[in-house]
Amino acid sequence: MRPFKSLIPLEKALKILEGALNPIDSTEFVSIKKALGRVLSEDIIAEMDVPPFDRAAMDGYAVRAEDTYGANNFEPKILRKIDEIYAGDVSDKTVQMGECIQISTGCKMPPGSDAVMMVESTDHVGAEVKMFKPVHPKENVSPKGEDIATGSIVLKHGDVLNPSKVGALAALGIKKIRVYEKPRVAIIPTGDEIADLGSELKDGQVYDINSYTLSSIVEENGGIPIKFEIVPDRKEDVRAAIKKASEYDLITLSGGSSVGERDVLHDVIEELGTVLFHGVQIKPGKPTLCGIIDGTLVFGIPGYPTACLSNGYRFLLPAVRKIARLPPSVGTTIKARISRRVVSSLGRSQFLTVKLEGDFAHPVFKESGAITSMADADGYVDIPADVDLIEAGDEVEVILLM
Amino acid sequence: MRPFKSLIPLEKALKILEGALNPIDSTEFVSIKKALGRVLSEDIIAEMDVPPFDRAAMDGYAVRAEDTYGANNFEPKILRKIDEIYAGDVSDKTVQMGECIQISTGCKMPPGSDAVMMVESTDHVGAEVKMFKPVHPKENVSPKGEDIATGSIVLKHGDVLNPSKVGALAALGIKKIRVYEKPRVAIIPTGDEIADLGSELKDGQVYDINSYTLSSIVEENGGIPIKFEIVPDRKEDVRAAIKKASEYDLITLSGGSSVGERDVLHDVIEELGTVLFHGVQIKPGKPTLCGIIDGTLVFGIPGYPTACLSNGYRFLLPAVRKIARLPPSVGTTIKARISRRVVSSLGRSQFLTVKLEGDFAHPVFKESGAITSMADADGYVDIPADVDLIEAGDEVEVILLM
Repeated sequence: MRPFKSLIPLEKALKILEGALNPIDSTEFVSIKKALGRVLSEDIIAEMDVPPFDRAAMDGYAVRAEDTYGANNFEPKILRKIDEIYAGDVSDKTVQMGECIQISTGCKMPPGSDAVMMVESTDHVGAEVKMFKPVHPKENVSPKGEDIATGSIVLKHGDVLNPSKVGALAALGIKKIRVYEKPRVAIIPTGDEIADLGSELKDGQVYDINSYTLSSIVEENGGIPIKFEIVPDRKEDVRAAIKKASEYDLITLSGGSSVGERDVLHDVIEELGTVLFHGVQIKPGKPTLCGIIDGTLVFGIPGYPTACLSNGYRFLLPAVRKIARLPPSVGTTIKARISRRVVSSLGRSQFLTVKLEGDFAHPVFKESGAITSMADADGYVDIPADVDLIEAGDEVEVILLM
Repeated sequence: MRPFKSLIPLEKALKILEGALNPIDSTEFVSIKKALGRVLSEDIIAEMDVPPFDRAAMDGYAVRAEDTYGANNFEPKILRKIDEIYAGDVSDKTVQMGECIQISTGCKMPPGSDAVMMVESTDHVGAEVKMFKPVHPKENVSPKGEDIATGSIVLKHGDVLNPSKVGALAALGIKKIRVYEKPRVAIIPTGDEIADLGSELKDGQVYDINSYTLSSIVEENGGIPIKFEIVPDRKEDVRAAIKKASEYDLITLSGGSSVGERDVLHDVIEELGTVLFHGVQIKPGKPTLCGIIDGTLVFGIPGYPTACLSNGYRFLLPAVRKIARLPPSVGTTIKARISRRVVSSLGRSQFLTVKLEGDFAHPVFKESGAITSMADADGYVDIPADVDLIEAGDEVEVILLM
């Protein structure tokens, strides 16, 4: 059996990873109805003004501002209403001296008018409208192009489309846009001891958990998981699966990275490419392997479900986001008090799952085989490698698992 | 024109909303491959043990613990290896006194053995294996059912499926589960002044922005947006659209809730159901309308894009989440210093969009018609109704728009 030569710190592993990842280059056209969360692969330059005309910013009357100068509550100016326009209407009349047109918010300003008198500052009898205060030119008017001017850069290459950015596209009448493709991530379960859902368990087998947890992490972080069939722990099968997966943007194998005699992934990566690191100072998940084959990153994640999943959060998540050109995840954190003393291994960054109850965080770790130590958790505490003890009642930062 | 009788505070509006919403009752079966983010509509009770057998928790040798008692570095106990098993293998041999079986992590414990000696504490010459320390019974063994015991409740009604909960389902071999349906939200754009994407703008028209921003918020929060055709601002058309939308779980109209003479939504809701509130002490978005028709909530959101979108975040987002049975959104917030003095309206809760730059938050609000005041923002500051001034340099909490 081959022992780990030397474990590297988590920070170093993440740095190596960061340096080896290439953001995706391929792009596709999508409808803006499907654009939420996608990453723009081009600047969006306005080909029109928004609004496309001067428009009323208030309900009231379109006036010539100079006709209102000197108005006050005691000596209102009286203007003659020559038309009324509501949302979507356009007046074909021109406002002459002493005239006004009743107008709704958003309407195009009629020719001749240069300001809107708010309805609250008026009173009317028939077509005679009293103006109780003056307005200055452009008052209560949104000028053409105020929101977006023709030729301006509205959204930039690399912008992630959230609801308001989707709205900016709609404002310009844009139906389809070019975005980066979502990275496709091969998820390859390995090991003779696991069976896929729907099959009968043979003696000594357990169901494949890791394909489903890792696929979920990929999906949550802007990638498309491509789940492979279970691959036996033999070199030729692992090599064939990796070659088959070489068309994808990232390859993740679960199982087969420990020091057991049948652990073959390390050898296959060395044969086809380069091992970047093997063995990280983390708990659980120490036997993590990372290599690169023809520019494609290959992860070997230990098979135990919690070790696998914590590695999914620590390594796969930032890798997928970087390839997808998404910003690093800003996990929601809350502060809590640890409910009991926790002894951590000095020199190992620990991923400690906890359940929240009021102000307290209860450790729920069972053993690295136990999926329930993750499924029952509300979040986790990342205990740094240089901390070996947290006393009951100490404040910790809990990263929520959502 | 009908003025707002009285505006209600934001907190009161949200409370009324909360009281009027009913979580969805209808359910559907989904594959666990499509289950991420869905809400369980039943408890999941384990019908098997996980692991389904006692298994090795370490690589090493399956032994009878008593055979190792007294072992130390100077006087190792020597056991005879009678078999080797790797992941997925099962031994058909029974470990007798003085014997051991080489075993990999995860393997089923062979009959007769009751503990695993870690490989690191052994040495071997042929079939003779030296044990340099004692193990106690059950040491390095994960007993059958340790993770999940038959009959236990593994996941509960109402649980939201995250990666690890999906993993717990996989552990039990479960392929399909029953979840609550996603609420379907009718998004009805109203107004003669708006045109749908892909159409030519008529004079005085602008493109429909709100259907796209509101649909995005619904989608991000576990709902399914159902976008309606643009409805003219006439009572009969609005009434017909609302009746058509009555099969959905929530109805949102954008535009048509202001005090303009053609604003008809208030009348239609009064005719078909009950107005819960009309006019909220917020900025922008004051003319917000909320009613209930045959148990279905109807929102009337002002048509101006930023007013519409801020209302989407303030009202539609929590409403959709509650109907979807999702927990309230835990928005990611960061602290920043406001870069210039902001005067807010006393008595109005302000939704102030900001752009982040280093430690500073720059207000980017243009006017409520400007989608770019949202699209250019990184987040917003929620200025309470009782605050009328924030001085340059004051610390504010920015809720990120993602």
